[in-house]
Amino acid sequence: MTEQKFQPLDSGIVPRFAGLPTFMRLPVARPEEVDVALVGVPFDGGTTNRPGTRHGPREVRNQSSLVRRVHHVTGVSPFDLVRVADCGDAPINPLDLNESLESIGGFFDGIRRAGAAPLTVGGDHLITLPILRGLVTDGPVGLIHFDAHSDTYDNFFGNRYNHGTPFRRAVEEGLLDPKRMVQIGLRGAISDASNYDFARAAGIRLIFIEEFIERGPEDVMAEARAIVGDQATYLTFDIDVLDPSFAPGTGTPEIGGMSTREAQAMLRLARGLNLIGADLVEVSPPFDPSGLTAITASTLLFELLCILADSVARRDGRG
Amino acid sequence: MTEQKFQPLDSGIVPRFAGLPTFMRLPVARPEEVDVALVGVPFDGGTTNRPGTRHGPREVRNQSSLVRRVHHVTGVSPFDLVRVADCGDAPINPLDLNESLESIGGFFDGIRRAGAAPLTVGGDHLITLPILRGLVTDGPVGLIHFDAHSDTYDNFFGNRYNHGTPFRRAVEEGLLDPKRMVQIGLRGAISDASNYDFARAAGIRLIFIEEFIERGPEDVMAEARAIVGDQATYLTFDIDVLDPSFAPGTGTPEIGGMSTREAQAMLRLARGLNLIGADLVEVSPPFDPSGLTAITASTLLFELLCILADSVARRDGRG
Amino acid sequence: MTEQKFQPLDSGIVPRFAGLPTFMRLPVARPEEVDVALVGVPFDGGTTNRPGTRHGPREVRNQSSLVRRVHHVTGVSPFDLVRVADCGDAPINPLDLNESLESIGGFFDGIRRAGAAPLTVGGDHLITLPILRGLVTDGPVGLIHFDAHSDTYDNFFGNRYNHGTPFRRAVEEGLLDPKRMVQIGLRGAISDASNYDFARAAGIRLIFIEEFIERGPEDVMAEARAIVGDQATYLTFDIDVLDPSFAPGTGTPEIGGMSTREAQAMLRLARGLNLIGADLVEVSPPFDPSGLTAITASTLLFELLCILADSVARRDGRG
Amino acid sequence: MTEQKFQPLDSGIVPRFAGLPTFMRLPVARPEEVDVALVGVPFDGGTTNRPGTRHGPREVRNQSSLVRRVHHVTGVSPFDLVRVADCGDAPINPLDLNESLESIGGFFDGIRRAGAAPLTVGGDHLITLPILRGLVTDGPVGLIHFDAHSDTYDNFFGNRYNHGTPFRRAVEEGLLDPKRMVQIGLRGAISDASNYDFARAAGIRLIFIEEFIERGPEDVMAEARAIVGDQATYLTFDIDVLDPSFAPGTGTPEIGGMSTREAQAMLRLARGLNLIGADLVEVSPPFDPSGLTAITASTLLFELLCILADSVARRDGRG
Amino acid sequence: MTEQKFQPLDSGIVPRFAGLPTFMRLPVARPEEVDVALVGVPFDGGTTNRPGTRHGPREVRNQSSLVRRVHHVTGVSPFDLVRVADCGDAPINPLDLNESLESIGGFFDGIRRAGAAPLTVGGDHLITLPILRGLVTDGPVGLIHFDAHSDTYDNFFGNRYNHGTPFRRAVEEGLLDPKRMVQIGLRGAISDASNYDFARAAGIRLIFIEEFIERGPEDVMAEARAIVGDQATYLTFDIDVLDPSFAPGTGTPEIGGMSTREAQAMLRLARGLNLIGADLVEVSPPFDPSGLTAITASTLLFELLCILADSVARRDGRG
Amino acid sequence: MTEQKFQPLDSGIVPRFAGLPTFMRLPVARPEEVDVALVGVPFDGGTTNRPGTRHGPREVRNQSSLVRRVHHVTGVSPFDLVRVADCGDAPINPLDLNESLESIGGFFDGIRRAGAAPLTVGGDHLITLPILRGLVTDGPVGLIHFDAHSDTYDNFFGNRYNHGTPFRRAVEEGLLDPKRMVQIGLRGAISDASNYDFARAAGIRLIFIEEFIERGPEDVMAEARAIVGDQATYLTFDIDVLDPSFAPGTGTPEIGGMSTREAQAMLRLARGLNLIGADLVEVSPPFDPSGLTAITASTLLFELLCILADSVARRDGRG
Repeated sequence: MTEQKFQPLDSGIVPRFAGLPTFMRLPVARPEEVDVALVGVPFDGGTTNRPGTRHGPREVRNQSSLVRRVHHVTGVSPFDLVRVADCGDAPINPLDLNESLESIGGFFDGIRRAGAAPLTVGGDHLITLPILRGLVTDGPVGLIHFDAHSDTYDNFFGNRYNHGTPFRRAVEEGLLDPKRMVQIGLRGAISDASNYDFARAAGIRLIFIEEFIERGPEDVMAEARAIVGDQATYLTFDIDVLDPSFAPGTGTPEIGGMSTREAQAMLRLARGLNLIGADLVEVSPPFDPSGLTAITASTLLFELLCILADSVARRDGRG
Repeated sequence: MTEQKFQPLDSGIVPRFAGLPTFMRLPVARPEEVDVALVGVPFDGGTTNRPGTRHGPREVRNQSSLVRRVHHVTGVSPFDLVRVADCGDAPINPLDLNESLESIGGFFDGIRRAGAAPLTVGGDHLITLPILRGLVTDGPVGLIHFDAHSDTYDNFFGNRYNHGTPFRRAVEEGLLDPKRMVQIGLRGAISDASNYDFARAAGIRLIFIEEFIERGPEDVMAEARAIVGDQATYLTFDIDVLDPSFAPGTGTPEIGGMSTREAQAMLRLARGLNLIGADLVEVSPPFDPSGLTAITASTLLFELLCILADSVARRDGRG
Repeated sequence: MTEQKFQPLDSGIVPRFAGLPTFMRLPVARPEEVDVALVGVPFDGGTTNRPGTRHGPREVRNQSSLVRRVHHVTGVSPFDLVRVADCGDAPINPLDLNESLESIGGFFDGIRRAGAAPLTVGGDHLITLPILRGLVTDGPVGLIHFDAHSDTYDNFFGNRYNHGTPFRRAVEEGLLDPKRMVQIGLRGAISDASNYDFARAAGIRLIFIEEFIERGPEDVMAEARAIVGDQATYLTFDIDVLDPSFAPGTGTPEIGGMSTREAQAMLRLARGLNLIGADLVEVSPPFDPSGLTAITASTLLFELLCILADSVARRDGRG
Repeated sequence: MTEQKFQPLDSGIVPRFAGLPTFMRLPVARPEEVDVALVGVPFDGGTTNRPGTRHGPREVRNQSSLVRRVHHVTGVSPFDLVRVADCGDAPINPLDLNESLESIGGFFDGIRRAGAAPLTVGGDHLITLPILRGLVTDGPVGLIHFDAHSDTYDNFFGNRYNHGTPFRRAVEEGLLDPKRMVQIGLRGAISDASNYDFARAAGIRLIFIEEFIERGPEDVMAEARAIVGDQATYLTFDIDVLDPSFAPGTGTPEIGGMSTREAQAMLRLARGLNLIGADLVEVSPPFDPSGLTAITASTLLFELLCILADSVARRDGRG
Repeated sequence: MTEQKFQPLDSGIVPRFAGLPTFMRLPVARPEEVDVALVGVPFDGGTTNRPGTRHGPREVRNQSSLVRRVHHVTGVSPFDLVRVADCGDAPINPLDLNESLESIGGFFDGIRRAGAAPLTVGGDHLITLPILRGLVTDGPVGLIHFDAHSDTYDNFFGNRYNHGTPFRRAVEEGLLDPKRMVQIGLRGAISDASNYDFARAAGIRLIFIEEFIERGPEDVMAEARAIVGDQATYLTFDIDVLDPSFAPGTGTPEIGGMSTREAQAMLRLARGLNLIGADLVEVSPPFDPSGLTAITASTLLFELLCILADSVARRDGRG
Repeated sequence: MTEQKFQPLDSGIVPRFAGLPTFMRLPVARPEEVDVALVGVPFDGGTTNRPGTRHGPREVRNQSSLVRRVHHVTGVSPFDLVRVADCGDAPINPLDLNESLESIGGFFDGIRRAGAAPLTVGGDHLITLPILRGLVTDGPVGLIHFDAHSDTYDNFFGNRYNHGTPFRRAVEEGLLDPKRMVQIGLRGAISDASNYDFARAAGIRLIFIEEFIERGPEDVMAEARAIVGDQATYLTFDIDVLDPSFAPGTGTPEIGGMSTREAQAMLRLARGLNLIGADLVEVSPPFDPSGLTAITASTLLFELLCILADSVARRDGRG
C-alpha cells in the first residue's frame, strides 16, 4: 500500500461532484514525488480539420471524477501499487507549433528525469512525438498504437509536423523501432492508395479493423505482444479508434470502429508489457455535447493506469 | 381482447406527437380498473452524484408515444391480453427522503391491494426498495436484476438509504430471497475489493458483463430462470446496465455495457416468469441531449410490459 | 482515370472545413456531364411523426467533407472509375405533397435521360417512389432495401402517399418486382399483426434483424443477391436500419438495429450488383445534436458510391 | 372563486416535475365544462422552411408546469375568475393540409358552440385561419397581432394556404376587419418592396419594431386598443415577435425583436379588451436545445390567460 | 500589491484552457492565508423542482478561467488589494439536508474565524442560511438580495428548510435584520396572493422588476444603500434575477428579468458597502447547454469580488 | 437593376433549406465578375483560447439562407444596386500562421485588383490584418471597429500575430490611420491597467460600452462618422461586441454587450460611409448549439452588405 497521500478522495465522504477536478480526484504533486504522473497536454495546433482537443485534458479531468479504485476484472488496484498524482499540464504555446513541440518535449524530459512514468491526456496526436522525444534516450522503443489512422503521412499542407505525421517522424528520428510497432484498428477511406506505403516499407504491423474483428482481441493482442516483446514499449491510444457511437467528440471520427468492450479487452490483455508510458489523445469536448467521449476516455485512462502501474511496480519488484 | 377503453390511441388517426403524453398513449385510470398499472416514481433523492432522474417518468411518457401494439418477435399483444393504463405517479417529497420512502411504499401497497401488477419508471434505484415493501407481503420474492452496479452497499455518506443500497436493505428486510436473486451486467471499477462481499455471502448470483458476453443471453437467462424458479419474482432494470452509447442519460454511466440487442434478447427470454411487477430506473433527461435514453427506455418498457402482461394473463388463465 | 475535373478537392491543399459543402467536395455539374449524379431530395412531406429530413441533404453535404478517395478494403476508387459530381437538389414544394411527387419524378426522369445513375440523399422514404417512377421505364426492377420498417402500409391518416407506403405503391405501379425484393433489418413492435400481410402475400422477402443477427452479413447478402439476381436493381438505405446509437437523428428510431460495421459489411458484399441507382434517406438533422447521424450517412454514402460506381463502370466495360 | 375542480395542482404537494403535463397542470375537461379552453393545434403543414412546431403544444404543456396562480403585477387570478382546463388538441392530418384546415375549423366551431373561449398553442401560424373560421360567425372581428412578419402574402410555392398567408385569407373571407387590425413588431428584410402592399391597401395598421422601440409599449398599446375598440377582438402572438435571444426555437427567427419585458408590458396593457380568444404559435422544440422558448411561451400563455379570463369574466359580469 | 503568490495565472504564459480550473485560476489555499476566500457549496438538496446546482461550483470554476485582473470601469484590481484564493468546497452530504446545513454552517464558521470574507458559489439558495449562521455572530446583519423570488415562504412540502425559505428562517433566527433587507428584481406569478405577507410585515423592502425598470439602477441602488447603511451587510445574488436569455441554466427561470448590463451597473454601484461576504447561487449546469450561464456567473463573480475586496481593504485601511 | 445572374434564389420557388448554401443563396462567381465579393476566411490560427472560428464561414453560409432581399428600414436593395456573389474562401494553411497571413493577403490583393469590394466572414480577428494588407495600397485608411476588445496588444505568448494584436500591427504597418480609428463596445476586465496605453497614445478613439449605452447609437455613430470622415474606410465587426445572449458562439464572450437592436441601429446609421470593405469575425459554431450566433451573423452580414453596396454604388455614381 502506498502512502495515504496519493489516494483519490473517498467518494463516500466527498461527493464526486465536489472539489477540484484533478485527474481521478488525486492530489496535485510534482513528478519527483510519484511513480506515475498523470498529465495533460492541451495542444491542438497539429490539427488539420476540426479543432478542440486543447480542451481535452480539462474535460477528462472533470469526468474522471467518476473513476473508482480497484479494477473489477484484473483486481489491479493502481493506487495501492504505486504513487500516482496529477502533475499538471505541459507548457504549450497555442500560437506556435514549433515552440510547443520544444516545450512539451522538455516537460516529458523532466518527468523522465524525475523517475516517473507519464500517463498523458491530449491534445491532438502530434503530442506523442515530443512525448517520445522526452522519454526515449536509450534507442528506439516499441509501440502499441490504437487508432483509426496510421498517422504516418509525410506531410499535410506542406507541413511535416501535424497530427497525421507523428509516427513517421518518430521512426525517422530513431525514437521508435518500426519492427516493434503495431497499429490496431485502422480503417476508413484513404486519400491515395499509397497512404500506407511508408508504414509497410518500414515494417510496421498494420492491423485493420476488419482483421481485428475477424480475429478478436485475444489473438490480436497476443500478436501485438509478440511484436513489441519484453523491451521498453510505449502505448498510444487515439480515442478515434473507437466507433463514434462510443466517442463522438473527436476531430476525425470514422464509423465502424472498435467497441469499448473490445478496447477494454485489449487493454486488460496488455497487462505485463514493459511500458515506459502511455497516452490517450484526440478527445475534443466542443464536439461532445453529451459528455460521453470524456467519460469513455476517463474510464479507459483508468484501464491504462492499471497496466502502467502494474508495469512500473513489476520493474520496481512490487508487481 | 380487452375492452376498447384500455387501448393506445390509434396512430393512424391521432398523430404520435399530438395529445397528452401518457405512457404509451394509454388512458389514465385507477389501479382498480386495470391488470397492469404503468406508473412513475419521480424521485431522485437517493442519488449520490448526478441528479435528474426525477424527470425520468415524464420524459419516458413523452417518448413512449413511439410505442406500438404487437411484439414483432414474440407476437405478444399486451393490450389484448390485459387491461393496462397510466395510473399516474407515486406521491413523493423532493425534500424528504424518509417521507418519500413511506409514501412510495404506500402507493405500491395500494396498487397491490387493487389487484394490479405495477410496471414502474423511476427515479433512481432506491425506489425499488419501497416498491418491494408495498408489493411483498407473503415472504421474500425472487429478483432478476439488470444493472452495472450491485447496489448492495451498506451505506453512503453514513446514510443507509440511497441508490447504492436498496438490495441490501431489501434482503435484510426479508423482501428478497438472496438465494433467488441474480444480478446481471455488473461491471466497472469498485471502490474497494470488499464491495461484493455482502452479496456473495448472502448467496446472490453475480453475473459480470464479462461472463455475460462469454456465455450469451440464452445461457445466462436459462440460469437466471433456474435461480428464481416458478415462484413470485420481481424484475428491476437499471438503464445503466446498457452501454452508455445506448443510454448516455443516466447518473452513473459505465462503459462496456450491454447492448440493446442483448437486453432485448434477455427480456424476450424472460417470458414465462412469474412476475409480480417490474421497474425501469435511472433515466436522467438532463444528461440526455439527444433523447436517445428515453427512447430506449420506452422501447424496453414495452418489452417489459409484454412479459409482465403475459405473466399476469397466465396467472389469470388467459395467457 | 476520369477527368481531373470530377475529383474531390485535395484535403492537403484546401482544408476540409473550407469552401462550399458540395457532396464529398466534388464539383457541381449537370447530369449530362457525369456517370453518377449525387443529388438531394429535401422533402419530408410524407412524414407522419417527427419532421426534419428536409434538412438532410444539406447536412450530409456538410459532413461529407470528411470523405476521402479510395476504399481501404475493396480498393475501389470511385472517382477514378466514373465521373461523379454534385448535381443539386430535386425541385420540391414543401406545401404540396402531390406536386412534389410529380417534380421529383420529373427530376429523376431527367437524370435517367441524361444517362447518369443517381445516388440520392433524402428526405423521408416517400421520395423513393418518385425516384423509381423516374428511373424505371422497362418493367419492374429488383430492390435491396435496408430499413427497420417495411414501408408497405396501405395508408396512414387516409393518405396513400407517405413514408410508410412507398414500396406498396411501387409494387402496385409495376416499378418493383416483389419477387426480386428483399427487406433487411426489419424490427420493432407493429401496429397490428397484419402489418406484414401485403409484403408476404406479394412475395417480398422479409429479413428481420433477429434473423440477420443469427445468420450474419455474408449469408444474408448471399441470399439477397440470389433474390435480385443479375437484372436491374435499386438499393435503398433508410438510416433507421441502423441502431439509434449510431444514428439518433432520424424520425422513427428503433433500438436493437444494425451496427455500422454490419452495414458496411453488407454494402461491401453488395459489390457487383447491377445497380441503376441508390438512395440514403431519413437523416433528420434537428434530432442530431452531435452530428453523428450525418457523419454516418456521409460515410455510408461513400460505400454506396463505391458499389454504384463499380456497377456503372462494369456496365460500361470499365469495371 | 371557481370550483376546486378547475385548479392547477398544488406545487407544495405535487412537485412540478410529477404527473401528466397538462397545460399549467390543470385538469383535462371538455369545452362544455369550462369558460376558457386551453388547447393545442399540433400542425406545421403550412411551414415553408424549418418544421417542428407540430411538437409545440406538447412541449409548452411540459414547460407550463412552471406556471403559478396569481399575476404579480395585475393581481389577476385567472383560475379564480373562470373555469379553465386542458381541452386537448385539435384533430389534424400531418399529411393533408386541406383536411387539417377543415378539422381544425370544426374543432374550434365546437369550442365556440360549447360556450368556451379558446386559448391555443400552435403549430405554425396558418392555424389561426381555421381557428377564426371556427370562432367568427357574426361578421369580422378585430385583431391584435404580434409578429415579426405580416403573414399577408398571397401565396408561397403557388399555395394560398401556408404560414405566410393566413391574415390575407382571413380578411378576404370576411373573418377579420382590416380596419380593426394592428400588426406589431414587424421587421426583417423583405423579399420584395411590395410585400406590404396588400396590408397597407386593406387598411391594416403596421407597426414595425423600430416604431415600437421609439414609442414604447404604453403608447403603442393605446393606439392598438383604439384601433380594435370595444368590439369582439382576437389576439394572436407569434413567438417570433420576440428577439431570438428570448425565443430561439422558432422557424423564422428575426434578430432585433421585442424583449420579453416589452411583450409582458404589452399583454398587461391589453387587459380589458373584448377578447373572443387568443393563440400563441410558432414554438418549434427541435430548434430549442435549452428549452428557453417553451418556457417563455408558457409564461406568456399565462399572461394571455389572465387577460382572456378577465375578458370572459367581464362579459359574464364577474370581472 | 499583495504577494505574488495570490495572483491568477498569467494568460499570456499559461493558456486559459490549460491547468486546473480553480476559481479565476487562483492558487488553492487555506482561509487563514487569505483575505477573501472563494469557495463552493455544491449542494442542491433544498431544490423543489429542477436539480443540478450541485454541479454549479465546478462549472463556474471551469468558466472562470476567462476572468481577467482589473475592472475596466471602476479600476479596482482585487488581486492587488487583498489576498484571494480558492479555498475549496464546503463539506456536504447529498443524502442529508440537515447534516448538510450543519456542515456548511461549520465551514463558514471556520472561514469567519480564519479572518477571511467568503465569496461563495452555490448550490441552491438554501445554502445562504447556513452561510449566515457561520458568519453572523454579533447580531443581525443587512442584506442586499438579488432574486426573482423572495424566498420567504414558510415551508414547501411541509419542510421548513428549502430554497424557498432561507430568508424567512434567517430573519426568525436573528441572522438578518428585516429592516435592513432589500430584495431586488422580484417577479413572476405567485402561488397565492399572500406570498409576500411575511416579507412585508417584517419590513423587508421588496423591489419588483417593474419598479426596478421604472427607476433604473442608480436610483434603486441608492435606496438599497440607504436601507442597509454602513453596518455589516451580506450580498446574495441568485442568478435567476437575470433574464433567462442571459442565464438559462437555472432551476426556476422567470422571463422578464434583469439584464447583465443592469446587474453589472448595480454591482458597481454597490461599491463601498460594508460587506462581510457574498454569494452567487442557483447556477445549474445540466440545464445550460451553451455554457452561457456559467460564463455569466463567472463574470459577475468578478464584479462581486471587486466590491468585496474593496470593502475588505477599506476595513483594513487599504482601500 | 443588376443582371438577373447575381440574384439570390427565389424562396417562393426553391425552398430556403434546399440547394447549396452559398452566402445568401447567391451564385458562385469570380471577383472580376462582381462589385461586392462575399468571401470567407476559415482561419482560427490566431486564437489564444477557444478555437472553432475556422468553421464560421461555412455555418454563416448555411444560416444565410434565411436572408431576404430588401432592407425593411432603409429600403436598400443591395442585389439591385450592385453585382454580388459568393467568391469562395481565401486559401489558408491550418498548420502555418505565417503562410496563412501571406495567402490571405494575396487573396484580398486579388480581390482589390479585380475591382471588387470584399465583405468577409471569419475566422478569428487576426484575419483583418492580411485583409487590410491586401486592400490598402494608397496610404492608411480609417476604421470603424465593433468589438468587446481593442485587439491592440503587442503580443501574446511571445507572438506578435494573433487575434489580440491585429490593429496594433495594422497601425504600425501604415495600413490604418489611428486618428481615423474608432473602437466601439469595448468592455470586460483587463489583464493590466496598461492594456489600452498603445491605443490611447496612438490617438485611437475608444468608446466603451458604458459610454455607448449612455449616449446611444445616433450620437456615437455621428462621432464615429466625423472621425473617419469621407475618406476610404474599412469596417470590422467582431461578433463578440454583441452580448453573448445574442451571440454565445464566440471564443471570448463578454457579458454586458451591445444588443442586436443597437448593432442594427449602428450599421444603418453607417450608411453613406466611403467603405472599401468590411468583415464580420469570430463566429465559432462549435460553441453555438442553438445556431443563434450564425443566424445573427447572417442578418448582420446583410446589414453590412446594404451599406457596402450603397457605398460602392455611390462611388460608381449609381447610389
